[in-house]
Amino acid sequence: MSDKAWGGRFGSGPDQVLDAFSRSLPLDVRLLPYDLAGSAAHVAMLLRQGILPSQDGERILEGLLALSRQAEEGPLPLGEADEDVHLAVERLLTERIGEAALRMHAGRSRNDQVAVDLRLYVRALAHDTMDGLTRVMAALLSRAEAAFAAGILLPGYTHLQRAQPILLAHHLLAHWEALDRDRDRLADLARRANRSPLGAAALAGSSLPLDPKYTAQLLGFDDVCANSLDAVADRDFLAEFLSFAALTGIHLSRLAEEGILWTTAEFAFAELEDWAAFGSSLMPQKKNPEAFEHVRGRSGRLVCLWAGFMTTLKGLPLAYDSDLQESHYALYAAVDTLLPMLAATEKLLLALRFARVRMREAAADPLLLATDLADDLVRAGVPFRTAHRQVGELVGEAVRRGVPLSSLDPDTVAAHAPSLPLRRLSELSPEAAVAARLGPGGTAPERVRQALEAAQLRLAPPPLPPRPPSVAEVLQTRMALVRASR
Amino acid sequence: MSDKAWGGRFGSGPDQVLDAFSRSLPLDVRLLPYDLAGSAAHVAMLLRQGILPSQDGERILEGLLALSRQAEEGPLPLGEADEDVHLAVERLLTERIGEAALRMHAGRSRNDQVAVDLRLYVRALAHDTMDGLTRVMAALLSRAEAAFAAGILLPGYTHLQRAQPILLAHHLLAHWEALDRDRDRLADLARRANRSPLGAAALAGSSLPLDPKYTAQLLGFDDVCANSLDAVADRDFLAEFLSFAALTGIHLSRLAEEGILWTTAEFAFAELEDWAAFGSSLMPQKKNPEAFEHVRGRSGRLVCLWAGFMTTLKGLPLAYDSDLQESHYALYAAVDTLLPMLAATEKLLLALRFARVRMREAAADPLLLATDLADDLVRAGVPFRTAHRQVGELVGEAVRRGVPLSSLDPDTVAAHAPSLPLRRLSELSPEAAVAARLGPGGTAPERVRQALEAAQLRLAPPPLPPRPPSVAEVLQTRMALVRASR
Amino acid sequence: MSDKAWGGRFGSGPDQVLDAFSRSLPLDVRLLPYDLAGSAAHVAMLLRQGILPSQDGERILEGLLALSRQAEEGPLPLGEADEDVHLAVERLLTERIGEAALRMHAGRSRNDQVAVDLRLYVRALAHDTMDGLTRVMAALLSRAEAAFAAGILLPGYTHLQRAQPILLAHHLLAHWEALDRDRDRLADLARRANRSPLGAAALAGSSLPLDPKYTAQLLGFDDVCANSLDAVADRDFLAEFLSFAALTGIHLSRLAEEGILWTTAEFAFAELEDWAAFGSSLMPQKKNPEAFEHVRGRSGRLVCLWAGFMTTLKGLPLAYDSDLQESHYALYAAVDTLLPMLAATEKLLLALRFARVRMREAAADPLLLATDLADDLVRAGVPFRTAHRQVGELVGEAVRRGVPLSSLDPDTVAAHAPSLPLRRLSELSPEAAVAARLGPGGTAPERVRQALEAAQLRLAPPPLPPRPPSVAEVLQTRMALVRASR
Amino acid sequence: MSDKAWGGRFGSGPDQVLDAFSRSLPLDVRLLPYDLAGSAAHVAMLLRQGILPSQDGERILEGLLALSRQAEEGPLPLGEADEDVHLAVERLLTERIGEAALRMHAGRSRNDQVAVDLRLYVRALAHDTMDGLTRVMAALLSRAEAAFAAGILLPGYTHLQRAQPILLAHHLLAHWEALDRDRDRLADLARRANRSPLGAAALAGSSLPLDPKYTAQLLGFDDVCANSLDAVADRDFLAEFLSFAALTGIHLSRLAEEGILWTTAEFAFAELEDWAAFGSSLMPQKKNPEAFEHVRGRSGRLVCLWAGFMTTLKGLPLAYDSDLQESHYALYAAVDTLLPMLAATEKLLLALRFARVRMREAAADPLLLATDLADDLVRAGVPFRTAHRQVGELVGEAVRRGVPLSSLDPDTVAAHAPSLPLRRLSELSPEAAVAARLGPGGTAPERVRQALEAAQLRLAPPPLPPRPPSVAEVLQTRMALVRASR
Repeated sequence: MSDKAWGGRFGSGPDQVLDAFSRSLPLDVRLLPYDLAGSAAHVAMLLRQGILPSQDGERILEGLLALSRQAEEGPLPLGEADEDVHLAVERLLTERIGEAALRMHAGRSRNDQVAVDLRLYVRALAHDTMDGLTRVMAALLSRAEAAFAAGILLPGYTHLQRAQPILLAHHLLAHWEALDRDRDRLADLARRANRSPLGAAALAGSSLPLDPKYTAQLLGFDDVCANSLDAVADRDFLAEFLSFAALTGIHLSRLAEEGILWTTAEFAFAELEDWAAFGSSLMPQKKNPEAFEHVRGRSGRLVCLWAGFMTTLKGLPLAYDSDLQESHYALYAAVDTLLPMLAATEKLLLALRFARVRMREAAADPLLLATDLADDLVRAGVPFRTAHRQVGELVGEAVRRGVPLSSLDPDTVAAHAPSLPLRRLSELSPEAAVAARLGPGGTAPERVRQALEAAQLRLAPPPLPPRPPSVAEVLQTRMALVRASR
Repeated sequence: MSDKAWGGRFGSGPDQVLDAFSRSLPLDVRLLPYDLAGSAAHVAMLLRQGILPSQDGERILEGLLALSRQAEEGPLPLGEADEDVHLAVERLLTERIGEAALRMHAGRSRNDQVAVDLRLYVRALAHDTMDGLTRVMAALLSRAEAAFAAGILLPGYTHLQRAQPILLAHHLLAHWEALDRDRDRLADLARRANRSPLGAAALAGSSLPLDPKYTAQLLGFDDVCANSLDAVADRDFLAEFLSFAALTGIHLSRLAEEGILWTTAEFAFAELEDWAAFGSSLMPQKKNPEAFEHVRGRSGRLVCLWAGFMTTLKGLPLAYDSDLQESHYALYAAVDTLLPMLAATEKLLLALRFARVRMREAAADPLLLATDLADDLVRAGVPFRTAHRQVGELVGEAVRRGVPLSSLDPDTVAAHAPSLPLRRLSELSPEAAVAARLGPGGTAPERVRQALEAAQLRLAPPPLPPRPPSVAEVLQTRMALVRASR
Repeated sequence: MSDKAWGGRFGSGPDQVLDAFSRSLPLDVRLLPYDLAGSAAHVAMLLRQGILPSQDGERILEGLLALSRQAEEGPLPLGEADEDVHLAVERLLTERIGEAALRMHAGRSRNDQVAVDLRLYVRALAHDTMDGLTRVMAALLSRAEAAFAAGILLPGYTHLQRAQPILLAHHLLAHWEALDRDRDRLADLARRANRSPLGAAALAGSSLPLDPKYTAQLLGFDDVCANSLDAVADRDFLAEFLSFAALTGIHLSRLAEEGILWTTAEFAFAELEDWAAFGSSLMPQKKNPEAFEHVRGRSGRLVCLWAGFMTTLKGLPLAYDSDLQESHYALYAAVDTLLPMLAATEKLLLALRFARVRMREAAADPLLLATDLADDLVRAGVPFRTAHRQVGELVGEAVRRGVPLSSLDPDTVAAHAPSLPLRRLSELSPEAAVAARLGPGGTAPERVRQALEAAQLRLAPPPLPPRPPSVAEVLQTRMALVRASR
Repeated sequence: MSDKAWGGRFGSGPDQVLDAFSRSLPLDVRLLPYDLAGSAAHVAMLLRQGILPSQDGERILEGLLALSRQAEEGPLPLGEADEDVHLAVERLLTERIGEAALRMHAGRSRNDQVAVDLRLYVRALAHDTMDGLTRVMAALLSRAEAAFAAGILLPGYTHLQRAQPILLAHHLLAHWEALDRDRDRLADLARRANRSPLGAAALAGSSLPLDPKYTAQLLGFDDVCANSLDAVADRDFLAEFLSFAALTGIHLSRLAEEGILWTTAEFAFAELEDWAAFGSSLMPQKKNPEAFEHVRGRSGRLVCLWAGFMTTLKGLPLAYDSDLQESHYALYAAVDTLLPMLAATEKLLLALRFARVRMREAAADPLLLATDLADDLVRAGVPFRTAHRQVGELVGEAVRRGVPLSSLDPDTVAAHAPSLPLRRLSELSPEAAVAARLGPGGTAPERVRQALEAAQLRLAPPPLPPRPPSVAEVLQTRMALVRASR
């Protein structure tokens, strides 16, 4: 007969190859603290409902608390024979407290158990990720504030061609906005994820008189899943986390791309501090922005994790299928990719030395002020499309002659753009162009100052559900509820 | 010289191959109504700010209104020479009202213009998709209500193995919950998307005294984008729509998979009405659930669209790059895939004739009641894990002997599970098992009745930003604001 | 009763929504020429096997030939009532030749028919794509030859940091090699795809005495599929084409990225001819490399098509499932993306004006010669790692002092790298560095000359299976076989 | 100053967070044996070319041999301070043999070094994967032979609806064919990958007089990469391996899907041996095909790895970028997913007990013989489309009356299908239907017997490049070449 916990009906235990292939322990071991807490809440509920004998129940709770404390000090002794984290906990508990442990799983299946573990873990991750995002945003903001104070200008680009002068602070805040949306998405998904599947058992609920709302309360969930099949079949919260993570990764990759471009010899807009760059094993002169490249490169990994998980979910019939074990793989890989990307990006932002003179030089190319000339013509009553063409022709002349736009002679200017006040060409400056962009969201210093102030106020992250409780915290809540109910 | 609207500085127009390659018109033509409305709002603002001569401005508005009405009656005459929808509108307007049209583009770039068009379009799609989702949910609910009234039972499955009896209504409601989360995500993303990028111009804002908040108001946006670079570089709202669409597609694929399984000869849980099935060109007997297969198969397309769009976004420097033209491709392909999938799923749900007798037969296999026996043992004081093993051994005996679990002789039962009340085996019924699952979210009839009632109340979709206005509606709002300000 | 061709057993035809949802005609219409040719081969075989009455068979062949000729002149009248291209052809043929047409489908199913159509289409695409690839390679080669003749140098990059001087011709040939591998992959997949599935019928073969080898011969296939289930279930040839297309797209995206970088104001290594660049609707000075950006951006679409198709295939049971209709979507979208990307890349390569002086200037930075100094030290007997450190220290000194590496004073040099011959620093030149890299595959002029010559010889594409035959060609082969067998 | 091997020019070593973020050692440690062998070949070449002093060179070779032997016995002492496997080897060698080790890296960069390591690793994996595939194919073939000997029939399916009877052996061979194509693809990619990048150095080749062809020969490569930039930038061989792996995964997922379906209570075509199934923690009766589900589910992971890697490659400029570090992640994850999937599938195939009676019962449904009736009518001269309709009407009658097709009364038959010989209906049998499908690739026993014989002959895998050599083997080849040259 099989010596598996579920082996009653089986003539033999599983083949070694298939057993190793199907084990989830190497994947789900990091659910351990959530499994312990979830089990504590479940057992507390079983006790309250009279399903467990009081003495056995309390022993289990003590055992779980002890395991929880032991786990905080070092890895628990898990081994090849443990199929998954749930059965490993049951085994450890049995070794510690004996037969009473065999009562713990009443009214529960690994299907609802793994779902509750994953949801608690996602709650923990939501906090870690929110912190990471906020730290990157704080770094962006501090660099933007300093750049603003220093009055650093650079060209804004479209199609990677210089377009118009902007403030560096304004540019950095653009990335800030993208990350702020990521935080908003994270808060949304954490809220949506915060429902307890416990009580769904295998898929249909239990014939024992469970009280899932009580368990949910002990674990800090907002509510109970409304449908037991959905409770065990649903991995939307992971899919959402993965798509959030991928989009955040894409935002970081766009920032990294600029870090790479700006530190080239050709742009030379910034240099990395020596402590943030890497050398070549062959070429003694090299100073490579490798960490930026890793940020950019690993964003591909994040994209793939979502896509792969969707592929896995496609066409799965209700309720639980083992294909869902891929949940672990995708989630852990995503977290292990994203959190270091956030930490590295924060460091990299602080390691950039901006080349103020070089940036201004690039922004001062008179070609970048062509739009301002066209706007002047509009103010002089010329239809915009006509103004655009007139200035375009001036640009064409300047390029063909190989002279700066501002050096064109008055006759040429008058021939192409008769309404253009002549002194305008000589008055062109990137500072003036920047100052003129006064609309909401524009790059004028006044606006950017407001934006920086607003960003300071907006830096505090949106609220999340609480971090998942430890076993000790579950037991404290239990006591508090008892007291409150008296 | 180039005869492109932007061709002033160019010695020649683009090569034919490259021009065709770069044209977005075939893709973005469906933005036309939003482009017209966005232009109307922009021009109304230019007028209000005194940037346009009053007469020219009003002529443009009349022209846009006329074009809008013309477009409602049939496709506007767009052609090979039109590079994109924005320049096509400018051309058509010029042909209609003459030189005044050349003033329309003041203070605007195609960069903020396409962003506003896309955001308006996503608002329209949010409504269409919400409707489609709600219709599928209504179909699920009506089928669930009827199945509940008819008392239809079937086996619930895990690992596609029969697990425990459940109500068909309960099963259908599991899918309902998944789609309801999709609606919630859709509402979240529509809210987050509802900011106006107009005023960002190319990337830096404009030197003309624009009033972007007014434009936003005319178009029904909640606010203005906070940063002009971000306003033109941001496609998060599309990425979110695509991941929403893919996850919805995955939910539909899971439903479709069950439609396919249930209509096999082997399951025979349902039959499709003749009007919902398809035949074979070779085999006269075939009745194929092709539409279900298309739903399942096309979910792959939706997954790919998100992943491809992320790939395209990866590593793009700020602010606007032409790679973002892929926005159109991905969004339109997603919509053209998802909306028909929703419509087909609604029809398919209504076309299923459930085979009540066959379903109950399958659910009545005594093996499915093994958990209830284990729960009985728990109630009799046996630790759950021991109870599981005892019942597992009984199952093993029954399987080896090839008899139903309920037919095992008393001695065998007593030998393996001494605490099991003997009459229990004969009392087993799927109806009793279902009725016992009384916890919140469980499959007991009482609970399912409550769930059906709750679903009726929850059927109304969550609120969305308004549908995007037509030109006429923009002008009405303009008038209303004038009146209100008096 | 249903009036569908397969409608005998159905009480009613399909619902309009589901019918439209399931129709493949809009997708598979481009299979028409292959469907006609495949049908001609099938009917010729039926005739030869005596399964069709001779007169009817010949009428069908005449009808197919006529339809084929008509289709060459303009689109055939296909309509909403046509479910797919196969039934459309049957309808058109029936309208043209009457009842005899009803005999055409004997021994065939749409399952093997669509498979043969797709395989013929892939053969056609293999030729088109091979041509497109070869043209891009020819353009690369001609630019490389000219660059070689002009002796253009530029910095080679790693991590987008200048690394060592190389010949521009050498750089361009690196892209050439990648595309040559693409051609090799294409030839492999075309060979593997070239088996005929006809004869597999629905999935099991036919009870009529078909001769699939004869059909295969008429259509230019190398052989018949070895297993009838696999013949209708297999879409590996599409998956391979899609992964080939995506990797080719990635190669083009890497080339495009460099086109974008090189035409920035910062690199200024190249300028696009006016006819290959695009302007801005707002900024009169802009000259944007949009076509390069589209090449880069659309590579994401190609990646997604493979991934989506894989998602669709995942978990499909044998033999044919309607999910496979996604084959059409993925294949056509891939082709419509890739072929224009190839054509545009060819044009863009010809449109680049390289800035020889600027490139050499960048390559002449003495820092790029640091490796050569280390190699000198190795030649002088210094262990490489020590040599690397010594030169690294010299670089550090030069950077800190803000002077070129070549201007360091003798004392400093001697202090850090005592074995370095002093005159070496003044002899450094990019030309000398390039000339020294004489190993196979290296950038020395002698080697690059050989590589250019080899590339000319290797420019002819690898062999492919023949282009798919037209109906007329099928009939000619039939005649030839008759003659040959006499 | 930095104490990194490349740290000469750096004022300080990297920040701890960024250093940990950028380290590849945890990823690339499994390249160790290939790095040692590649280094041995490189040093043997340096010696032969007189670039290294003879004594130092031989000491390095001895040191590498010793490290190689040490590594075979247990993990080498690698630590946090080791940035990557290449520098770790250099450190270990230096600790073992002293200063001589500092000469090893002459004429080499980590860029060509990692490329050669990866290519050698892919060669090793090609062998492992080929073995795994061949073992699955052998298992399929042995099950097919036994099923053939036992004459097992089952319904062939299209759209998961019963279509026509087939032999189980024929069905199993369909999967065999798909895997055989995978082997063909694997051989193609292994051949294409088998070129040595050594000698490319950083990207431009070396100024030292290297002999890359000699190194290639020592390592068993077919040739040297033709272009040094391409040599370090190219990861096509990984992309190809990943797409091969994903498609193989998809094939396994299709097989697994059938394993899952066939072992349901509804199909009941097969049962898993107890040693290949898994139980439920809650439901004592469950016997779940979890390993099949894992095979199906993990195919999603494989799809994602290719897509993610493509995303990472997109838009990378030449030559080497650190983004390519993702190569390791993708490749190792793919291998660690695919090889166990192959091993598990082999076991699962051997664990299926086919339910012969139940399968035949399902295949004997007279509806499955409808096509044969239509073929009979064709033989009687009825046009196929008419025959299809007539038989379809008979099917409709039978379904409406709820009787088997074979029990329809003569009058009904004559009314709908006047040409159908009446005794045909009673003669229908699945065995006869199978036997009639005699065309190449068909399911007739005669054909399947041939196919089984052919499969035995085709079971030997296609040839691959040799497994990568160990250090000892490199040195043996060196000796052999010396001898041969005398």
